[in-house]
Amino acid sequence: MSVSETASVHAGLPRILQVRTKILKKNDELAREMRAGFAAAGVRVVNVVSSPGAGKTELLTETLRQLRDRGAAVAAIVGDLETDNDARRLAASGAPVRQIMTHGLCHLEADMVQAELAAWEAEGLAVAGLQTLLIENVGNLVCPTSWDLGESLRVVLMSVTEGEDKPLKYPGLFNTADLVVITKIDLAEACRFDRAAALAAIEQVRPGVSVLETSAITGQGLDRWLAAVQ
Amino acid sequence: MSVSETASVHAGLPRILQVRTKILKKNDELAREMRAGFAAAGVRVVNVVSSPGAGKTELLTETLRQLRDRGAAVAAIVGDLETDNDARRLAASGAPVRQIMTHGLCHLEADMVQAELAAWEAEGLAVAGLQTLLIENVGNLVCPTSWDLGESLRVVLMSVTEGEDKPLKYPGLFNTADLVVITKIDLAEACRFDRAAALAAIEQVRPGVSVLETSAITGQGLDRWLAAVQ
Repeated sequence: MSVSETASVHAGLPRILQVRTKILKKNDELAREMRAGFAAAGVRVVNVVSSPGAGKTELLTETLRQLRDRGAAVAAIVGDLETDNDARRLAASGAPVRQIMTHGLCHLEADMVQAELAAWEAEGLAVAGLQTLLIENVGNLVCPTSWDLGESLRVVLMSVTEGEDKPLKYPGLFNTADLVVITKIDLAEACRFDRAAALAAIEQVRPGVSVLETSAITGQGLDRWLAAVQ
Repeated sequence: MSVSETASVHAGLPRILQVRTKILKKNDELAREMRAGFAAAGVRVVNVVSSPGAGKTELLTETLRQLRDRGAAVAAIVGDLETDNDARRLAASGAPVRQIMTHGLCHLEADMVQAELAAWEAEGLAVAGLQTLLIENVGNLVCPTSWDLGESLRVVLMSVTEGEDKPLKYPGLFNTADLVVITKIDLAEACRFDRAAALAAIEQVRPGVSVLETSAITGQGLDRWLAAVQ
């Protein structure tokens, strides 16, 4: 349900377009309020988006673990169509974690995040006391594009196993990124990863955006990544 | 725009649901007609779906090349949000290839395929003379689920680099698969791929479905794959 679908001229879409525009506007307004609230409370909110299997959960588990080791108050919300596999993996870090199961929906929306925050508050977790809230979106390089979650940092992950041209083929999402993280850099050689081609593709779609290269396995690039999300 | 979104209870969705149900019904009717036409003409139509970067284009390029070597009349249609990169890669096989650029839409629809077939006919390619038509869908494990393209075989690819639990996390799409292909099997060791866990996840979501393991690089499993799409 990406907004760019509205460019389509398929039968029936003008009516979908109207309803969608309304829903997106509502989402935008809520996200704006949430962002103001997070900013006032000093909570860094990071919306992490990628293909399925690009390594979001692996990176975020390590992120929660290391930030907690440094004494930071961190928490995570994770979205999946089904299963709480990722929440269980993230919770191994010891941080508070909540799983959203979307039951088929291809992206997270601001009101879903808001509902999880309210549930936390009801359980006694003061969201305003967090330094960093990580949101792991549904694995999808298209549909999360238009759904602002109130984040202060939107990160798009791409793994070296996916092919260097992904930014060119999914420009909408990459174009909304504040930061691009190339993951699984430890597999670069095995995958014949062409670093220059990947960087050129990112630069073409989102000129000037920061790019980090990381491996949650070897730890490469994690210091710079941790600095970015704190 | 997966149909399973209709399970959501978010504001405004009842109206979207109605419009969507209508559009999907129209798509289903067209797809059914197209499937009957393909069957009458003896054209095997394969709808290939996966995450971005799971290796669809690599596998299909090799497939077109090898089927042509065997004298088969084959062609391919490929969908991407932007770029004709994949069409150019597939066309290196020598087979007729058409690129659909969806400009933001997260899946292919039957009428898009129909339009490309009409364009081919206008150019003098007799679609009814084909043995196999490969359709490479947009890279997305959610949204193509509900969109029948008139295929006789729906194949879901998952690469060893993506994690073994993808079927559990994206059950909708895997549940519509006639065949699951595990790709990039040459990278299994480098990725610490857990074959038993992956097979168990597939079996849990789609009991009894056939599973192939392939590598477009080493050629492993390609004979069985070629037999499946012929």
